[in-house]
Parts: sequence; structure tokens; C-alpha cells
Amino acid sequence: MNTATTATLVNHQVRLAARPRGLPAAGDWQFTEEPVGEAPEGGLLVKVLALSLDPAMRGWMNEGRSYIAPVGIGEVMRAGGVGVVVASNDAAFAVGDKVSGTPGVQEYWRVDAAQVKRSGLARIDTRLGSLTQWLNVLGMPGMTAYFGLMEVGQPKPGETLLVSGAAGAVGQTVGQLARIKGLRAVGIAGGPAKCEWVVNELGFDACIDYKQPAPAGVERWDAVREGLKKHCGNGVDIYFDNVGGDILDAALARLNRKARVVICGAISQYNATGATPGPKNYLSLLVNRARMEGMVVFDYADRYPQAVAELAGYLKDGRLKSREDVVQGTVRDFPATLLKLFSGGNFGKLVLEIARE
Amino acid sequence: MNTATTATLVNHQVRLAARPRGLPAAGDWQFTEEPVGEAPEGGLLVKVLALSLDPAMRGWMNEGRSYIAPVGIGEVMRAGGVGVVVASNDAAFAVGDKVSGTPGVQEYWRVDAAQVKRSGLARIDTRLGSLTQWLNVLGMPGMTAYFGLMEVGQPKPGETLLVSGAAGAVGQTVGQLARIKGLRAVGIAGGPAKCEWVVNELGFDACIDYKQPAPAGVERWDAVREGLKKHCGNGVDIYFDNVGGDILDAALARLNRKARVVICGAISQYNATGATPGPKNYLSLLVNRARMEGMVVFDYADRYPQAVAELAGYLKDGRLKSREDVVQGTVRDFPATLLKLFSGGNFGKLVLEIARE
Repeated sequence: MNTATTATLVNHQVRLAARPRGLPAAGDWQFTEEPVGEAPEGGLLVKVLALSLDPAMRGWMNEGRSYIAPVGIGEVMRAGGVGVVVASNDAAFAVGDKVSGTPGVQEYWRVDAAQVKRSGLARIDTRLGSLTQWLNVLGMPGMTAYFGLMEVGQPKPGETLLVSGAAGAVGQTVGQLARIKGLRAVGIAGGPAKCEWVVNELGFDACIDYKQPAPAGVERWDAVREGLKKHCGNGVDIYFDNVGGDILDAALARLNRKARVVICGAISQYNATGATPGPKNYLSLLVNRARMEGMVVFDYADRYPQAVAELAGYLKDGRLKSREDVVQGTVRDFPATLLKLFSGGNFGKLVLEIARE
Repeated sequence: MNTATTATLVNHQVRLAARPRGLPAAGDWQFTEEPVGEAPEGGLLVKVLALSLDPAMRGWMNEGRSYIAPVGIGEVMRAGGVGVVVASNDAAFAVGDKVSGTPGVQEYWRVDAAQVKRSGLARIDTRLGSLTQWLNVLGMPGMTAYFGLMEVGQPKPGETLLVSGAAGAVGQTVGQLARIKGLRAVGIAGGPAKCEWVVNELGFDACIDYKQPAPAGVERWDAVREGLKKHCGNGVDIYFDNVGGDILDAALARLNRKARVVICGAISQYNATGATPGPKNYLSLLVNRARMEGMVVFDYADRYPQAVAELAGYLKDGRLKSREDVVQGTVRDFPATLLKLFSGGNFGKLVLEIARE
């Protein structure tokens, strides 16, 4: 395909129409189409193959100061993704190259010369991992797991790591990497299928099913608390938090001396319509001289190649596994697919595949 | 005075009679007396001159796991203090030596040979500071301020430090030390008198009066939020928290990138009878890649001498000032005096002086 043929193509897009209150609803989205046009001077045209669906997207839809500017009303929804170069006016990229970046929820991504430098667009090597693995363990979730654990968590062999969202994109890599580094890894996930997979396939030492119903005859039941008693009897040295809310509080109550709490996300709160309560057990930080620290993966961008190389090595030698929940469809399936994240309906890294090469 | 004369003396004591619910009440205390007796073999007898009254005492009265064992029912209430050796069977201490330690709320402290080693009892040099300064800037509060700021806060010249309880024992030293280290220091205190003292006497750059009433015509008023807007317009790099609650939340909302929150205390919550809410703005830690970390001063015990030397130097050259709120009375005044801490009625480090040499 060359630039001459792309001019006749149509680009289907999903734009943010309104700021959601609570869960994003149909009216918050707008479907648009426009001509693809030609590759910009010095730039690229990328055909998007698969989009990354992330809990963080919910935050990007809100107004207000955060670690990244909100998506503007009327703008194409921000999304990470992988694609293939279909037209190139940049000598560094050839037609057919696979790339990852932040194309947004659309079928074609026009990247002008300036953007190539600052959009995080990068060629990817599919010998190191599949396209969907490049959205998972070799992509943002993997980078988040790697730097969150290694830099903020400061793992030491023999320690106990606890991670919530253990079957999710970030959690699966956090626990496996902790095991590789010589720690005990305990996960928290929703439902027996996810928990079994986390233990039997990924090799976590244990996984707590936060949805486990109360045993017969037990009135006051807190599945996480009971699970922590059983599986973290010697306390928690690192808690990697993807969920916030009650689970964060339960973990705080089990911290060991000098424990580290990595604040990576708080999916339980992203769709709250009122004020959400804070972690009422935060004084456990004082009692235990412990630390709670936030992290944003972009801060480590210049070290992604090093982390990718290490994680790809573990993938290759079989010590690291990954699971993607791939939904096949079109960009129009984006709104409904995104909601799976917030119901816990996804199993593994959620990906929307919108095209084949 | 020699051991022969102490045998006839009576030791008046205050013991914990019941675990308080909310503010400690009269019924939670028991007054006892017993003969002083003689100095134990290899040990000391100390006449207590002044007791340190600390917010942390409230925590020691609760049952349950914390950084230190709770005071048992029927035990003499734990308290730091200074005194004078009135009888000694330990060659390292002479009658007349001034010492600091944890005598408890009583008039005489019998220290047996084993306790001398592990009770934190130490001779103090009143040329470096007055007896009450040895309970303040050269004692636990000063050590807490020093290690909390220097080790957990990691101050850098040019940064902005915010400290709550700024006129209190810990806060006064935190802010002055931050200024000495080249930071801007902003305090939070209750009432114009404390705020004026913090700025005019201690040299803080600003002090926010959290009790300041709403200006005429303003309906929704948050004095701390308004004060932070005005005095921390460029954000907060270190927040040293002595109070918890709404003030912690307001500070979290103003954090700069890579800010440090030192969790030293939470006096606003110590007498709560129900569950206290957590800091609902904790996700500011994520957005700002910030850290919230607890500290307990005892962890730095082997480095107290170094910190005392540094702080005594600042006292001597006039760069560091201290204020103690000295109540003169007997151990029977302890219960009522303690309550001043929780009403904000004290102005400076609260000390109960129960004897003169």
C-alpha cells in the first residue's frame, strides 16, 4: 500500500461527546468518520490493529488536573494501541513496520513529523512477543508492573508481596515478576476461575477471591480479611494496589514494619459519583513506619527498553506468562467493551482487535 | 539526700484505671501512693521534676497492636520526664545528676540496674538547654521533628514545607529547622496568637489559622484551603502531619510532584469514638508520584546524641527558639492538664512541673 491508495479510505473514530457521570454511557460517545488522507510530510500513516483498554481511561475522561491532560470534548478518545505502518514519509519507518503508541480509538492514525518524536511511537519486534503481548507485558501494563514493583516496591527476596487485580494486566506481571525476584506472591482477584489461573498457571503462592461468599452459618464475612489471615499470616511487605477502597484498607491492616504500598490505581473508585472514602487504616503507615507511594509509568519512559528486554527474556524462557482478553470487533465496540473492565468481566489484559494486517 | 532518707518518702502516682472511650475522663484514672523505698541494688532513685504531656499518650491508653505496648490497666501511666538523681547505687550516676527518661506519672522513679540500660535513661546537660527544653526541642518532640523532617521528609533548599500543629512541640521545631535548611516554612495553627508567634517569633514564612472564621458574606469557607491557596501557591513539597483529618486532606490536594508527606501523628482522631474517615484525597499521591510515610522516633534512638548536638547549637546561636507551656502542680493535675492537648488549649510544648530541686 502506498500513499496514493490511503487517500480514498475512511477513518472511523470514537470521540468523547460528554464527560461521564459514573459509568460511561452511550451518550458520552460520538462516532465520526473522516477521510484518511495521505501520510503527512515527514510523518506516517498507521493502520490500527488493536487497542488497549485500560482502567486509566476513565480518569482521562474527567475534567481537572491529573497526571495527564483530560481528553477534550469532541476529541478522539485517547487509547494506546498497536498497528502497522501503511504509508511513510519518515526514513526511519517502512511500510509494514509494526508500531505501538497512542493512536486513539480510530482505525487510522496520522502521525505528523513532530508527533513521531513526542508521541511515544516506537517500532516493535514481534519476535519478542505477539501484538497483544506488546499491549500487555511488553507494553504499558508490563512497564507499570516492572517499575512499580522494582522502583517503588523495592522488593527483597523472601518478602511477601500482595497484589490486587492479580488476573488483570498489571497484576499478572507484578506477581510473576515478584516470584522471579525471590518473593512470595499472593494475589487478590474476583472469582474462582481467575484465582485458579493465577495460582496454577502463573505460579502465585496463593490467590484470595474477594468475591468468595460467606461459608454457611457465618454472618459477618470479609473474604479479603479472612484470606489475608490465611495467606499473609506473616504480614505484607509490599502491597501493590490496583483497586483502592476496602481492599486497600484490608491490606493496610496487615502491613509489616517498613512495608511499601504502591499506589498504581483505584479501579473501585473510578466511576464513583460522590466523594469516595479514603483509606481509614492509613495510620498503619505510622505504626509500621511504612510508606505509601504513587507511581505513573510515563516517568520511566527512557528506561522502557531495558525493562522490555528483561521481560521478553522471561517470556522466552517460559518464566513469565501473559493472558490477554481479546475482543474482536470495530471501533464501535469500544464503549461496551470498556465497561467489562469495571464489572470485572475481563479475564486478562483487555484488548479490542479492530483489524488484521 | 541519701538512701536512708528516701525510705520515709511517699510516692504519689497516677495509674490507668480503665481504657477511655473518647476523651479520657476522671474515672479512667486512679491515684495511688506507695513508699518510695531505697534505691535498688545497682540502680537509681530519681525525683521527677517535670513530666512531658504528649498527644501520643492517648494512643498508649488503647488496647491493641501499635508501635509500643499499651499501658496496662492498673499500671502507672507512661510518661516521659526529667528529674534529679536522689540516690544512686550505679557508679555512672551521682546524686544531683539531671536525667531524662520515661519515669511515668509519679513523683519518684525507682530504676533498677537492668532498667538503667533499657529505659532510655540518660544524663542531661542543662548548659545545652533548660529542663523544659530537654522535654521539648532537646527531647522526644525535637528528635521527632529532626528525624521526621531530615530522614522521612528529605528536605531540599528552596522547597516549601507545610507543618500542622505548628505551635506545638514537634511543629515548632520542624518549621524552624526547615528554615535553617533553606526551605520556605508554612505552618498551620489554631488562633491568631499562635499564628503570630509562629511567624513573628519563630520566623516561619506564613501561618494559616485553621480556626479563622469566614469573612462576612462568605458562605462556604474552608480556612485551611484558602490559606493554602494564598501561602502555598506553588504547592507543597513536604507536608509534616501532626493532626490528620480534614487538614491532611487539604494538604494532599496541594502536593507538588514527588512530594513527601510525613505521618507523625493524627491528634484530630485520637479521641474519636467511631471509625474515623481516611484521607479521601490519597490519590493525589498517584497523580503527583508522591509518598506518604509514617515515622516513630524510637527508631532513631542511636542517633539522638548527634541530633541533640545539632539542635543545641542552633539554640545557642539563637536560630532556634522553643516555647513550653509549663503547668505547675502535682501528679493529681495530670488528667486535667492532658486534656489541654486535645482542645488546643496548650501553647507550646505542654509540661507538668511537679517539683523543684
